[in-house]
Amino acid sequence: MKIITLTTDFGLDDPFAGIMKGVILSIIQDRKGEIPQLIDLTHQVPFGAVETAGFHLKTAYKYFPPGTIHLAVVDPGVGGQRQALAVEAGGQYFIAPDNGLLSPIFHLYPRYDAYLLENRDYMLEDVSSTFHGRDIFAPAAAYLVSGVPIESFGRKIKHPVISPEFKFEITGDSAEFHIIHIDYFGNLFTNIPGEYASLLLKRSFLLTIGKAEISQLCYAYEMIPEGEAGLISGSSGQIEIAFKNASAAEKLKIAIRDRGQIEFL
Amino acid sequence: MKIITLTTDFGLDDPFAGIMKGVILSIIQDRKGEIPQLIDLTHQVPFGAVETAGFHLKTAYKYFPPGTIHLAVVDPGVGGQRQALAVEAGGQYFIAPDNGLLSPIFHLYPRYDAYLLENRDYMLEDVSSTFHGRDIFAPAAAYLVSGVPIESFGRKIKHPVISPEFKFEITGDSAEFHIIHIDYFGNLFTNIPGEYASLLLKRSFLLTIGKAEISQLCYAYEMIPEGEAGLISGSSGQIEIAFKNASAAEKLKIAIRDRGQIEFL
Amino acid sequence: MKIITLTTDFGLDDPFAGIMKGVILSIIQDRKGEIPQLIDLTHQVPFGAVETAGFHLKTAYKYFPPGTIHLAVVDPGVGGQRQALAVEAGGQYFIAPDNGLLSPIFHLYPRYDAYLLENRDYMLEDVSSTFHGRDIFAPAAAYLVSGVPIESFGRKIKHPVISPEFKFEITGDSAEFHIIHIDYFGNLFTNIPGEYASLLLKRSFLLTIGKAEISQLCYAYEMIPEGEAGLISGSSGQIEIAFKNASAAEKLKIAIRDRGQIEFL
Repeated sequence: MKIITLTTDFGLDDPFAGIMKGVILSIIQDRKGEIPQLIDLTHQVPFGAVETAGFHLKTAYKYFPPGTIHLAVVDPGVGGQRQALAVEAGGQYFIAPDNGLLSPIFHLYPRYDAYLLENRDYMLEDVSSTFHGRDIFAPAAAYLVSGVPIESFGRKIKHPVISPEFKFEITGDSAEFHIIHIDYFGNLFTNIPGEYASLLLKRSFLLTIGKAEISQLCYAYEMIPEGEAGLISGSSGQIEIAFKNASAAEKLKIAIRDRGQIEFL
Repeated sequence: MKIITLTTDFGLDDPFAGIMKGVILSIIQDRKGEIPQLIDLTHQVPFGAVETAGFHLKTAYKYFPPGTIHLAVVDPGVGGQRQALAVEAGGQYFIAPDNGLLSPIFHLYPRYDAYLLENRDYMLEDVSSTFHGRDIFAPAAAYLVSGVPIESFGRKIKHPVISPEFKFEITGDSAEFHIIHIDYFGNLFTNIPGEYASLLLKRSFLLTIGKAEISQLCYAYEMIPEGEAGLISGSSGQIEIAFKNASAAEKLKIAIRDRGQIEFL
Repeated sequence: MKIITLTTDFGLDDPFAGIMKGVILSIIQDRKGEIPQLIDLTHQVPFGAVETAGFHLKTAYKYFPPGTIHLAVVDPGVGGQRQALAVEAGGQYFIAPDNGLLSPIFHLYPRYDAYLLENRDYMLEDVSSTFHGRDIFAPAAAYLVSGVPIESFGRKIKHPVISPEFKFEITGDSAEFHIIHIDYFGNLFTNIPGEYASLLLKRSFLLTIGKAEISQLCYAYEMIPEGEAGLISGSSGQIEIAFKNASAAEKLKIAIRDRGQIEFL
């Protein structure tokens, strides 16, 4: 089974994602390759938000089989100086602009292999300056899935663009955290790793962000007291701030990158 | 041909639906099963609206071949006391939380077979308290589609959660009806079954809801007089209140569960 | 490889598109046909906007392999007098209402073959007056993809509904243009064909629309000066008016069909 996932900020109003799939299927038909499963992760990454796309990949990739190809195009610098990448890491493949989008994957798998997409044989014949998703990235996924070795796409590079990791560290009895993602439900994903759940269950603490003060970890959204901010060990591997049946982002007026404090008492 | 449909309130901003598909494909690959068609019904059920999800299933299921598996996850009580179900009814399968979501299917097929999803062998190894769509429901669909008998998932139960059916009944010369669904176009779906169309064509009537008064059934949206509320025998099997090229919900300021009257003259 | 694309104004809140896929797969299963790839182009065409749907098809079709079937249902006149079409043009197939939606395809391929969908054998048994996407158009795609010859659907017609082409013509040293599409990012697509890019690079010009004045063509979005309107030779084959990281439609308060001027100096 071959799988290609798609992650973009193209939205669903225009046929951009569908056109990328047409390009992929056309190339595979020409090469008589096996038809892959084409799985949308999301096309609604906020415009240009490479960190959000990276977070989604980090959350999703591990639920796909080895060998899956993840095609991610959030590319505000399209047509400019930024380069294009094919990466092998953790037994899977990632195709994306070299603009920091893949940073969470590079942090997880520091022994990644990264190659430039520069071989014109594996692009559409006409390459526009505005839609490399169609002209460069989708063809790369199609050629890769149909057997072209990753080394054939271009030179191996050692230093792709990697954004710093926002590590969560406790110094003494307190720590600062920040919000790295807000999901569709308005749940606030902190950079506190889920592994801290056991500590939060054992020790007394006071977490503050905006006007919210939280002093216990709840087991499920349903167990958060009505109308109050609660703390959850979320399914994406991060500690989340959530409300029962309401958006924490709206209730607390919190945005991505906002910061909070946690004190152990 | 194997088919799994997906219905959720997860939205399309996050990769939640894509992750469920990754889980399904991973399990099928492990079991060397036939790859199913994965068909999205919608991921934009309003948050927690189990009745809407049930209405969608009731409307859609009959257009799929026998043996189709419908995976529906609208699950505000995830991680709490509610149980999880696999149901065989009308020659198809339904996998959903036991929170009333499947009520329309139970009403249609009172001879359903309902089983709990409780066998840990057919879940992901780690089960979170917040994303059973990924950890319990998607795996159940994958194991079921790849040959695990429905009896193997857990105990058969006799009394799943079933919401009362809002039956439409004429007493004397009048009847109350209510709005059970509002579609993307703003058409108001009443609980008056489509079979009443012939009666509405034969007898004089006055239907009132909000400020609207309607006294005839139109054949198509296009035939509704401009700017007026019209009555249509809709494609989903319900009598609908609609405007030509406009949203009846907005024009009439009507919401789900609002009530109206019909009088036969 | 068989492919059916889908383009509608049904939105993603209801299972309408999923139901069309269920109908297609059911018919293919009955006929033991090869399962096609079902590729969504978009379901978010603005309500009733047949020109937008046609523009999307014109932009997308050429990235699909020969023989692809494009199913497009933007159909405000459903149930009324308009007819239904299956068209062969440019080596591909198009199934749509006869309401002008396919005009861009007819202009591109004046030697098209157009047939009415009138053979009841290739529709669902019950045909509603409100959802021909499900009852007529999806079945036509399914029968066509599984081997029914296009001539079998109904009479060949010579004069389907075709909207006039908004041609761009320079008279003397100036020309009027207008906006034919606005994409998800708010980029304004003019009716100036991309082939004019070389002229715009060679000659001095002043393009005006609303409050914007533009005098040069930029190579990529990224190269448009911050906060200014720029001109781009877009990936869809049209000259576009765009802002860097912002919506030109919002910045300039421009809507579809708005007009501008270009003067060569």
